[in-house]
Amino acid sequence: MHVLVIGAAGMLGRKLTSALIGEARLGGRKIEKLTLVDVVAPDRPDFGGALEMLAADLAEDGVAARLIAGRPDIVFHLAAIVSGEAEADFEKGYRINLDGTQALFEAIRLEGAGKAYCPRVVFTSSIAVFGAPFPDVIGDDHALTPLTSYGTQKAIGELLLADYSRRGFFDGVGVRLPTIVVRPGKPNKAASGFFSGILREPLTGQEAILPVADTVRHWFASPRAAVGFLLHAATMDTSGLGIRRSLNMPGVAATVAEEIGALQRAAGERAVSLIRRQPDPVIEKIVQGWPRAFDPERALAFGFSGDASFDAIVQIYIEDELGGVLPA
Amino acid sequence: MHVLVIGAAGMLGRKLTSALIGEARLGGRKIEKLTLVDVVAPDRPDFGGALEMLAADLAEDGVAARLIAGRPDIVFHLAAIVSGEAEADFEKGYRINLDGTQALFEAIRLEGAGKAYCPRVVFTSSIAVFGAPFPDVIGDDHALTPLTSYGTQKAIGELLLADYSRRGFFDGVGVRLPTIVVRPGKPNKAASGFFSGILREPLTGQEAILPVADTVRHWFASPRAAVGFLLHAATMDTSGLGIRRSLNMPGVAATVAEEIGALQRAAGERAVSLIRRQPDPVIEKIVQGWPRAFDPERALAFGFSGDASFDAIVQIYIEDELGGVLPA
Repeated sequence: MHVLVIGAAGMLGRKLTSALIGEARLGGRKIEKLTLVDVVAPDRPDFGGALEMLAADLAEDGVAARLIAGRPDIVFHLAAIVSGEAEADFEKGYRINLDGTQALFEAIRLEGAGKAYCPRVVFTSSIAVFGAPFPDVIGDDHALTPLTSYGTQKAIGELLLADYSRRGFFDGVGVRLPTIVVRPGKPNKAASGFFSGILREPLTGQEAILPVADTVRHWFASPRAAVGFLLHAATMDTSGLGIRRSLNMPGVAATVAEEIGALQRAAGERAVSLIRRQPDPVIEKIVQGWPRAFDPERALAFGFSGDASFDAIVQIYIEDELGGVLPA
Repeated sequence: MHVLVIGAAGMLGRKLTSALIGEARLGGRKIEKLTLVDVVAPDRPDFGGALEMLAADLAEDGVAARLIAGRPDIVFHLAAIVSGEAEADFEKGYRINLDGTQALFEAIRLEGAGKAYCPRVVFTSSIAVFGAPFPDVIGDDHALTPLTSYGTQKAIGELLLADYSRRGFFDGVGVRLPTIVVRPGKPNKAASGFFSGILREPLTGQEAILPVADTVRHWFASPRAAVGFLLHAATMDTSGLGIRRSLNMPGVAATVAEEIGALQRAAGERAVSLIRRQPDPVIEKIVQGWPRAFDPERALAFGFSGDASFDAIVQIYIEDELGGVLPA
């Protein structure tokens, strides 16, 4: 089979590519061909099958049609301008996150207009489609009320995914990812960055800043769990999904205090002492609008499974990013 | 003030235009100028102020910018391809209902990029943004799960309306209209047509076909109430709306049996006897996916008011379309 990954150079895209190559199969079928696309060329992985690498902007004329002309069996659509940038640059956010997604969906519809073609499309959505006010635990029937342009663009992508799937143009699954922790790499300026930072930095002896209260509660998944969601979405039986094509993924609800507890159990009191409390009213306010927990009933019924606990999330970071051991 | 009505030649557009001219004022300000637009030129109404009439397609390049260059204070966006046609012609539905709406919103944003400009935008949405399964009475926080391309396009319009309003590009209010009864004019092929037909035809001595069971329950408003919703949306204080810019309007929930009861009270048993029961499994199935009733708490709190009863809806038709008297 032929698998297309759009957004392959990002953190999740690279981990997904590794997993695809590691498994070599998807839903019982051998992966014969892999096409990797991003605005910057992804690193060339070590893959035995046919490999195509492309640096291209999905929103540009003809790019989506060119990607789809190869008739991939599975399309992973991970490409997006992130929340902060989509908020800072209104036009760029809509161009990539909305026009780019529309261009992809239209290319698939038009490719199938001649000779039958109905690929599985896995669309990465986000809990950013939900904005306050909402209940402490959000159910599967809760209204989409995004508080950002990014969340709006993801919510629109979900609606298009459902309509194109209903019309039989493709077989879509939308995956509403929890906030990913522990994000590898350097600290960034995302408002959510501290959720990873207060673990990642202390685990390697660095100081980290905590801008919110210990009582803040949020919804998390490890990168490994997120890749698992995407792989499951690519292979699951979609016959029972009906028109509700996007699902709240099973995350782990945890307070900042519970994060710190997991850090303490993994790396001791010295690590915890590296967290410096420095309240930031701007971040406090942004975070207040974010979901705290979900009851992901449908996703569980459809066989998605998440991290076992916040301790497991920390352990995954140590295994996958630090070679299984903490620096002395 | 300058009022722009897009979709002015349709049933609601014409009634709205009449109401605007009849009132002569909106929110306490005199209407100095009226611009009426539709794909076919609307009939020229008798209006003392400045009047501009245009036949134009909102989705065509430059049309939206031309309409907005006149800097209307209020924009009523009623233009849409209806449900059945948007389902039959996928491309046309998306072009008019989505691209046209986006073009309008973008034209307003770009007009304001030079010199400050922030009009009120009244967007007509529909209860078609909701699809089964849902509870018997739908609350304000219920998820949008449209079952048609039309409903999808309206739901996307709502999301854009909210985001553009949040960013301060305009001050938008989305009005989720109930099914309008009694629709004046000839019977049409819309799946919902019988809800009006079983009243309109018997009221003037004609036979009408009822394709569903008497127990079917649905959510209704008269054309007069619908115009009232639009006028209120144009003038209401929006400061408490937050990001939730689209509201379920207060309709009247009624079963087909209750409709028939209202007909009987208005026009007697002879009128009722003109309803011919002819079950149609296709229409039965479509109607099963439609909302039955709402709890329009927010709309009521924001001052919207609907019809008093189904009897009142029938009376409005007799007054507004039959000159107040039933034909002998």
